[in-house]
Amino acid sequence: MGDLKLNHSVENGSASVLNPLDHEEFRRQGHMVIDFLADYYQNIEIYPVRSQVEPGYLRRRLPESAPLNPEPIETILKDVQKDIIPGITHWQSPNFFAYFQSNGSIANFLGEMLCTGFNTVGFNWIASPAATELENIVMDWLAKMLRLPSSFLFSGGGGGVIHASTCEAFLCTLTAIREKKLSVIGRENLDKLVVYCSDQTHFSLKKSVQIAGISPENFRPIVTTKSDSFQLCPESLRLAIILDLEAGLVPLYLCCTVGTTSSTAVDPLGPLCDVAKEYGIWVHVDAAYAGGACICPEFRHFLDGVEGANSFSFNAHKWFLTTLDCCCLWVKDPSALTNALSTNPEILNNNATESKQVVDYKDWQMALSRRFRALKLWLVLRSYGVTRLRDFIRGHVKMAKHFEWLLAGDKRFEVVFPRNFAMVCFRVSPSVIPNDEDVNEFNRNLLESINASGGAYMVHAVVGGVYVIRLAVGATLTEYRHVNMAFKLVQDHANALLCTH
Amino acid sequence: MGDLKLNHSVENGSASVLNPLDHEEFRRQGHMVIDFLADYYQNIEIYPVRSQVEPGYLRRRLPESAPLNPEPIETILKDVQKDIIPGITHWQSPNFFAYFQSNGSIANFLGEMLCTGFNTVGFNWIASPAATELENIVMDWLAKMLRLPSSFLFSGGGGGVIHASTCEAFLCTLTAIREKKLSVIGRENLDKLVVYCSDQTHFSLKKSVQIAGISPENFRPIVTTKSDSFQLCPESLRLAIILDLEAGLVPLYLCCTVGTTSSTAVDPLGPLCDVAKEYGIWVHVDAAYAGGACICPEFRHFLDGVEGANSFSFNAHKWFLTTLDCCCLWVKDPSALTNALSTNPEILNNNATESKQVVDYKDWQMALSRRFRALKLWLVLRSYGVTRLRDFIRGHVKMAKHFEWLLAGDKRFEVVFPRNFAMVCFRVSPSVIPNDEDVNEFNRNLLESINASGGAYMVHAVVGGVYVIRLAVGATLTEYRHVNMAFKLVQDHANALLCTH
Repeated sequence: MGDLKLNHSVENGSASVLNPLDHEEFRRQGHMVIDFLADYYQNIEIYPVRSQVEPGYLRRRLPESAPLNPEPIETILKDVQKDIIPGITHWQSPNFFAYFQSNGSIANFLGEMLCTGFNTVGFNWIASPAATELENIVMDWLAKMLRLPSSFLFSGGGGGVIHASTCEAFLCTLTAIREKKLSVIGRENLDKLVVYCSDQTHFSLKKSVQIAGISPENFRPIVTTKSDSFQLCPESLRLAIILDLEAGLVPLYLCCTVGTTSSTAVDPLGPLCDVAKEYGIWVHVDAAYAGGACICPEFRHFLDGVEGANSFSFNAHKWFLTTLDCCCLWVKDPSALTNALSTNPEILNNNATESKQVVDYKDWQMALSRRFRALKLWLVLRSYGVTRLRDFIRGHVKMAKHFEWLLAGDKRFEVVFPRNFAMVCFRVSPSVIPNDEDVNEFNRNLLESINASGGAYMVHAVVGGVYVIRLAVGATLTEYRHVNMAFKLVQDHANALLCTH
Repeated sequence: MGDLKLNHSVENGSASVLNPLDHEEFRRQGHMVIDFLADYYQNIEIYPVRSQVEPGYLRRRLPESAPLNPEPIETILKDVQKDIIPGITHWQSPNFFAYFQSNGSIANFLGEMLCTGFNTVGFNWIASPAATELENIVMDWLAKMLRLPSSFLFSGGGGGVIHASTCEAFLCTLTAIREKKLSVIGRENLDKLVVYCSDQTHFSLKKSVQIAGISPENFRPIVTTKSDSFQLCPESLRLAIILDLEAGLVPLYLCCTVGTTSSTAVDPLGPLCDVAKEYGIWVHVDAAYAGGACICPEFRHFLDGVEGANSFSFNAHKWFLTTLDCCCLWVKDPSALTNALSTNPEILNNNATESKQVVDYKDWQMALSRRFRALKLWLVLRSYGVTRLRDFIRGHVKMAKHFEWLLAGDKRFEVVFPRNFAMVCFRVSPSVIPNDEDVNEFNRNLLESINASGGAYMVHAVVGGVYVIRLAVGATLTEYRHVNMAFKLVQDHANALLCTH
């Protein structure tokens, strides 16, 4: 080997000129952004919750092309404040009561920092053993907290995996059972497979069914009714299955929901699983929003019957102090997933995989690449502990009860559906709305008026033809005073609308 | 409304007891983790690159259940150091030459912090206008940097979106064209659709085809040869298409690769698009690894012909100073995506969407939820500028050339395939390996010996039956001295193996 000093390219040393991971510069700029975000949280209430910008606002402010030369972080942060923050709908605001929350926390933030800092790509065990093993462990921890049957734990022959979204959990479990079924009945029967759910099921299921190549005609959202509290009725399910069988179709998959998006309805898992079992249908339980609440003994009954399901998922990135993305999926039979999703290219061959002693998570999910998301879950579980996580959830539920109590004090309002968790569905009662006005339209105008004020953000749902305003308590920073203010806002805007008549 | 002070629940105030987003505590703990990570980068070279733990190491160290009570961050960080870091394969190490890198940077890290800090869920425009609009803008910026035809830009009727992975980009474009085609020929013909690629195409395509419900029998990886530099040959493609048409099948989708995983081969885009166009096939160009390099004028020719493609993707989370996950996908016809992936549930109805003036990215991707990933790309582009990003890529390419030069100085080694970018495929030459030993086996042993040392991490590929060691230069911290050390390590381990004979 020649003298390295003689090599012409060494002198250029272009890479070291840039050094975009210089540790002292990392420290300096990192501290700056920590302070920026701490200030943001401190001042978050000054911003309108729902952004008030008009479509196209940002293109009018930013240049048409990327800069040729570097710009300092100080300038960029000023632009974040000036150009980005006005266009943000503030999901971390204590006055955010819309959709379902994605509530952050310090522990989660630190976990994300470590995840990004290490930036391991843990597609298989050897690519970063800690990433895989910590995920195995925290998924078992969480399963125990939820009192899932041991058959969902690694220690019981099942196992858990962190997906990016419920949609990915749907798609992967659908693919698993689709492939298993087609291997028996023949691929030419793909267009006979049927997927069941209720008309309250999250629309991600429909999308997943579409992506999985299952015929849209065989997607069966079964009608629910107010008298059944919008729960999927086991006898309606059975009827639908029997009709499909008579038509020569093949029942494949049932999705039950614990906490629907529109009204937090809970399907009766036990009876539904019993029906599904008779017909050999895979049951997935989607507890995206409400799953986390079931770590509290008083809410655990909502999961009764989950032992009959094949898979279960909940989004820690909703109501569990963890930011996007962190959908926790458990399956009883991991081989169903891995048979359908495994790929074993030469470049990933390694001794650990060949030993069959390890989990290679690439075969449990859609993509090859994956972030070390278990870190943030681990930090959340350790930093708060089971006890405070329960308190946190209970605090939100109590605040939702408090909002109900406030509504009850003003007879112009009504709670439309029974509350199961921390979301209240309410509206201005038809009895006080002038005769010439449509009740739904009145409430729609009320909500738009509230949201346009910037003081709080809520969204609506239409369930059984009734337009309701949903107030979901779940932001980390929300306190009683914010719930009180939200109620005052609702009253004020209702007053204004009622006075104009 | 009653006096709020009278309400029993107010006194409990459980939520505020916890306050997991207290801004002063956020500041304190955030600074702590910044310092932790800065120290990690400073000391990263002391760790073995490929983790040396044994399967199951972590379960033996951690408790069986989550803690009941909170633990302080100081304790947790000590455990990260003690229990997690030994199980990490250090992707950010300057001695990481394996797979393709996912190279982080300060700017990217700050962008991730802001993304996590704001934690907006930008499924549609109104859910956080800045998240959507900044993504529109940076995707146009990047497209201009790559000199993609204007038809891929929003300003030209196309548009870009950030996906989590190439697999998602494959799956969404496959679903788009699958649905379009089936609407013409009828859904019952799903099992006639054919997907083409080369035998060098990333295995994610096969997996995506499987998930999309396309028959595995209709997945056509076309054989490439060394004499063609493992490029997909347009005439072989045409032959395959003709045979399929004669068999009554329906050609659907072609994936071309710019920079294959095994040997960084580049398919001839122009001629392949010409063939595909004749048969109405959707062409996707997968430039996951090498796409970013094409911002340098001297590498742009590898994209010649991309104007004939329907979609193009590259992973900023590989060789573009951006961490997972950040796969940039452009399409010429967004309506093909949105027709196949749109969902319009009542709960997401809003005026902005109805105005049709905005992009709702949920209809461009698999999931509903999405992070504000454009922030990190924006910070990378602004913090480094086009000029330094080019220098950065050129620096790695020069270091790869330097490694080739080192190999050339030791006649026992040979470079097996021509180098296109910053990856060198080499092996110990058959001429120096003792007669009784298999050449591939010898090189396999050499690689395992290098990796077990912890001094560097490389992986292998088998192309055309030849086992090669891949040295991919691409970690942010890599300098010439690391390349020199890697070469010394290769020599030392080769010496040891050759001496034992």
